[in-house]
Amino acid sequence: MASNSFGQIFRITTWGESHGKGIGVVIDGCPAGLVINEDDINAELDLRVTGKNRFTSPRKEKDHAQIYSGVFEGKTTGAPLSIVIHNHDADSSKYEPIKNLLRPGHANYTYLEKYGVFDYRGGGRSSARETACRVAAGAVAKKLLDHFGIEIAASIQSIGSIDASLNVEKLPKLKQAIYQHPLYCADPAAGERMMAELDSAINDGDSLGGIIQFSAIGVPVGVGDPVYEKLEANLAKAMMTLPASKGVSIGEGFSASRMQGSEHNDLFAEDKALLTNHAGGTLGGISTGECISGQVAFKPTSSIKKAQATANITGEKASFSLPEGSRHDPCVAIRAVPVVESMLALVLADALLVNRAAKL
Amino acid sequence: MASNSFGQIFRITTWGESHGKGIGVVIDGCPAGLVINEDDINAELDLRVTGKNRFTSPRKEKDHAQIYSGVFEGKTTGAPLSIVIHNHDADSSKYEPIKNLLRPGHANYTYLEKYGVFDYRGGGRSSARETACRVAAGAVAKKLLDHFGIEIAASIQSIGSIDASLNVEKLPKLKQAIYQHPLYCADPAAGERMMAELDSAINDGDSLGGIIQFSAIGVPVGVGDPVYEKLEANLAKAMMTLPASKGVSIGEGFSASRMQGSEHNDLFAEDKALLTNHAGGTLGGISTGECISGQVAFKPTSSIKKAQATANITGEKASFSLPEGSRHDPCVAIRAVPVVESMLALVLADALLVNRAAKL
Amino acid sequence: MASNSFGQIFRITTWGESHGKGIGVVIDGCPAGLVINEDDINAELDLRVTGKNRFTSPRKEKDHAQIYSGVFEGKTTGAPLSIVIHNHDADSSKYEPIKNLLRPGHANYTYLEKYGVFDYRGGGRSSARETACRVAAGAVAKKLLDHFGIEIAASIQSIGSIDASLNVEKLPKLKQAIYQHPLYCADPAAGERMMAELDSAINDGDSLGGIIQFSAIGVPVGVGDPVYEKLEANLAKAMMTLPASKGVSIGEGFSASRMQGSEHNDLFAEDKALLTNHAGGTLGGISTGECISGQVAFKPTSSIKKAQATANITGEKASFSLPEGSRHDPCVAIRAVPVVESMLALVLADALLVNRAAKL
Amino acid sequence: MASNSFGQIFRITTWGESHGKGIGVVIDGCPAGLVINEDDINAELDLRVTGKNRFTSPRKEKDHAQIYSGVFEGKTTGAPLSIVIHNHDADSSKYEPIKNLLRPGHANYTYLEKYGVFDYRGGGRSSARETACRVAAGAVAKKLLDHFGIEIAASIQSIGSIDASLNVEKLPKLKQAIYQHPLYCADPAAGERMMAELDSAINDGDSLGGIIQFSAIGVPVGVGDPVYEKLEANLAKAMMTLPASKGVSIGEGFSASRMQGSEHNDLFAEDKALLTNHAGGTLGGISTGECISGQVAFKPTSSIKKAQATANITGEKASFSLPEGSRHDPCVAIRAVPVVESMLALVLADALLVNRAAKL
Repeated sequence: MASNSFGQIFRITTWGESHGKGIGVVIDGCPAGLVINEDDINAELDLRVTGKNRFTSPRKEKDHAQIYSGVFEGKTTGAPLSIVIHNHDADSSKYEPIKNLLRPGHANYTYLEKYGVFDYRGGGRSSARETACRVAAGAVAKKLLDHFGIEIAASIQSIGSIDASLNVEKLPKLKQAIYQHPLYCADPAAGERMMAELDSAINDGDSLGGIIQFSAIGVPVGVGDPVYEKLEANLAKAMMTLPASKGVSIGEGFSASRMQGSEHNDLFAEDKALLTNHAGGTLGGISTGECISGQVAFKPTSSIKKAQATANITGEKASFSLPEGSRHDPCVAIRAVPVVESMLALVLADALLVNRAAKL
Repeated sequence: MASNSFGQIFRITTWGESHGKGIGVVIDGCPAGLVINEDDINAELDLRVTGKNRFTSPRKEKDHAQIYSGVFEGKTTGAPLSIVIHNHDADSSKYEPIKNLLRPGHANYTYLEKYGVFDYRGGGRSSARETACRVAAGAVAKKLLDHFGIEIAASIQSIGSIDASLNVEKLPKLKQAIYQHPLYCADPAAGERMMAELDSAINDGDSLGGIIQFSAIGVPVGVGDPVYEKLEANLAKAMMTLPASKGVSIGEGFSASRMQGSEHNDLFAEDKALLTNHAGGTLGGISTGECISGQVAFKPTSSIKKAQATANITGEKASFSLPEGSRHDPCVAIRAVPVVESMLALVLADALLVNRAAKL
Repeated sequence: MASNSFGQIFRITTWGESHGKGIGVVIDGCPAGLVINEDDINAELDLRVTGKNRFTSPRKEKDHAQIYSGVFEGKTTGAPLSIVIHNHDADSSKYEPIKNLLRPGHANYTYLEKYGVFDYRGGGRSSARETACRVAAGAVAKKLLDHFGIEIAASIQSIGSIDASLNVEKLPKLKQAIYQHPLYCADPAAGERMMAELDSAINDGDSLGGIIQFSAIGVPVGVGDPVYEKLEANLAKAMMTLPASKGVSIGEGFSASRMQGSEHNDLFAEDKALLTNHAGGTLGGISTGECISGQVAFKPTSSIKKAQATANITGEKASFSLPEGSRHDPCVAIRAVPVVESMLALVLADALLVNRAAKL
Repeated sequence: MASNSFGQIFRITTWGESHGKGIGVVIDGCPAGLVINEDDINAELDLRVTGKNRFTSPRKEKDHAQIYSGVFEGKTTGAPLSIVIHNHDADSSKYEPIKNLLRPGHANYTYLEKYGVFDYRGGGRSSARETACRVAAGAVAKKLLDHFGIEIAASIQSIGSIDASLNVEKLPKLKQAIYQHPLYCADPAAGERMMAELDSAINDGDSLGGIIQFSAIGVPVGVGDPVYEKLEANLAKAMMTLPASKGVSIGEGFSASRMQGSEHNDLFAEDKALLTNHAGGTLGGISTGECISGQVAFKPTSSIKKAQATANITGEKASFSLPEGSRHDPCVAIRAVPVVESMLALVLADALLVNRAAKL
């Protein structure tokens, strides 16, 4: 079943494996007249590159996106944008020794069972490399949000046991600072403690999980559709399609379940403005005009250096550990920050276009 | 934009307002040959009726679903099933005094802004009454799961500050006990403390939130599709379309973000069975064959008796409180238990059918 | 697979069998603010009722549509409209004797093979009765076209060997006259000859086919989407979903294949207006602003009084003829006129809403 | 709105302009395990190359498709196939002089009005070059049909006033002969007369239209879905998305409207086999197991050498004729033969996969 597309009007379809000829995305439904070029896209891609510091996997060749179609004289034409990123630096040989092992916490077992085949080189289609396509598409979606005056951002909220202190409404203004921080965290003080905990995990050959906070300001009231296309439902789906994501919430999230109605309800001022924003910017699936905010939880990286008991594909006892020289992030949440931001952009861009058909 | 449908192959479309002629659901894509009758559906609807005890709103006329199409001689025919529930007991007059008030935590503000009109009687389309249609459709989906040997359940996990102690893999076997408990909770001891906390909130004219745990056993390995139709992504979307839901998670959920990779990874035994199930039954969006489990967080009921400051639709200062005799649950999570279970059934039924096209 | 829906934004889902409790349609995606009531819908349904004269099957109880949802104080609310038509006059007993016969030209064979079950009463889901739901939905779509200043019509173009002489651009203005004609034909002179040919077929216990011409004026330039959502492609699909339709064309249709480029090309005048309209109102799948016109071919009614050789469902030799008192039209094209008009309305309404997302 | 995709389960998305970096197609939903390589695809692409003889436009660089993803060790993996064809031989300069002219019979007018921009180089997205992507995807679909024992073909049925005499059930066996004929026509005698008529049109600087016949044998009974996903409806849509197509029909097509019921009905033999096949292989939208056949009408090529009156984009009087050295086919139907065949393959492959969910 076709399962590599996302969105209703602003619709993306991604393709590609970690070690094939390349990866890419087709964006169908982008309105004509949007100014966009390859630099806009590559600037976003740079945010999720590896090897910037010891907290992401060693440096690979920089990704370089090319726009193959849909742009003419610097503007979108209404035709689909095809963005292609050729693969480089794909040494498949190091995957040979582990190709017959079931990898704990990894999708090779389920792919094998489902399809009867698995492209084990770099994780094939299950590789997080696919998220580069989301970032490329997100760059176009962000241009559309710019056009409508919407600002968005994401930041590390926690890594391991350390929580940042974030003001969700301020995040979009802190975007530049966030991406200058080694952990993409808007709270540098907490960031220091996170780095210490990460160093400890790295030394143990282990990995950590984390939580990402996202927010958007400037979204007008009325965006999102009842009943099954609620804004928060599409955000939840978007975020849970991310590799390693295990939970998603909006506004107060799980904490809302511990509050009383009188405490959680956001009251209206005389001008119909909301006095608080526990709801996280939506009521009944439709935006309120307030800051849209939510959180995404990521499990710790499954590929670790510590040896783990497993079986091979023929059901014999085996042990799995990352081969020497393998590249894996000690915490996938860090590089997921620009990806979460991109998914937020994609959901909002789509919902804004969908909303054009609501009224006569 | 069409936004009242859910599912790809097993696809539901719901319609209806709280105080209109009725509500209903069309199920399109149900395979032919499934044995189903109105009693099957009405037995499920009885689980979400009100007025069973002091923890749900006072008794309404029981819902009665009629199958208008798609069943012939007791079996589905491949044609769409249309299920209609006529409305009774709909006294709209009590909504007259509050029809011009923006209700804190309620969708009437966003509907008004989006559509320029709001059917205020009983909440119109934004009413949780729509979830009866999900339960009716869920009853059909559960028949399909039965056919495939899959058992599912849901239970209250927490209300207010009280947490139950649940064994997710056992929940499906406890289904009968759960629905006999006043709070639909599989842990009666915790249930006692929840009732005390609920009574206190009721006395204060206030409300509580809660968390629901869901689980499914017997789902074969291989169900769910990468990349944008991951099983957990569709579960997340399904749950976040529920009124008052604010968060959703799979397996260890947000707690996974506090674990280390060596701790979270589920190891494979020699026979490829998984030794633990922190993942919650999926890897890379595809079922592992283990118990599928997750949680949904609900905010406290927004409609409370306590007076709250607000504005009316013309922007004048006002106060809102539920009119005397109005009916609202002190905790929406309780009656949401069979609804969460139904959404789980709908997602799984659809994914099982979708999976038929994966291999040659 | 869900296959009972049509349209992208303005999306209908129909349900129901000929002899079940009723039939109906859910319209999802209709913009809020459209003025509509049950009389508007029932007036359209009256156009396809039987028994008006000897050229349609004997009179049944008039269809009466009820709006179950989606309208509040006379206007659409953005919520789905559910329209229900209860079945009356459904005497299934006369279908008992033929329930095990494969009916020549009828779908009972293919339904049985596909689903393993067939609701033989009145043709079940394969009954042309389903088209009443299209007309009901079409009534709403036409209100939307009214709002945008678009006028549409359909007329019998041919029955048997007799062709009408029609001016497609004038058809919308002749709508009233068309529906007063016994054959729904805008050319009364040709109509006389058609009636003679029909009477002859009726006397022979046989049936005739026919062609319907449709047209729309006032559609602005720019409606319809390349590549796979071309306006003519969606019209073609819409028309070929009609029972008994065997062909569809746009503009000059099949005759265009006999013309030379210099003859078929429509030239532009100085003001960019087109001097001719061989194209039928679209270029590259997008409307030109000219009259949109096309034709749909219908085979002769398959259910006839003449005995025909066949087999029963267990493969034994048999003979099929309509039971005495059975009701079937001698030419299905006649009552298909308002249905074709409705499909035209549905395609245009959807395309108009879709077009809102084309430009920034 | 996303409009560059086709199919439900076996779903293609095409992208690219005539003179951009390239064109391509993403195939999502192809089952895992299908044997396919680039040669399979390029062999099909060779069928629609230009320049083979005087009846197609002068030779361009041969198209060369590359599989970028979705195939591992020679088999599909269940991941999307991305097929890229880089553009060569794209001399845009000759389009400079005509870039501001409205081209009679061409889509540049409607694109300009719809999007406010038109990539005039080679026709941009409206170029028939997009159909190469359909052929590439069709090559994969044909592999799937092979797997299920289905054979398909297409042939020129008419060019200008000349009709071929074809046996639709034999066409798949004549495939090799068809593609060796200069006009892709299975009737060489008629082909001679067609070539004479074409030569005459070429001498006049004019163009001709044509009709293509298609057929498929081996499709099992039960494929296709009522009501809005009828096999013939999806075929009609598929064919009417082709550039220059103006009509489509199934079985007897428009001729069926001239027949009597007793004549058109296909009778069943004792073994339930059909004695004739006027229906063209479907009843009620579902395949009967007989040969599926239909026709597609193409208008004459709009771009001709003869001067035609027109306007420029600012509304001034102008004249349009193809610049010297421009390349255009005198009859687009010829090279459309493999494209029609590909669309047939795509519709059938999708319907076969969809059909897997019909029964328990």
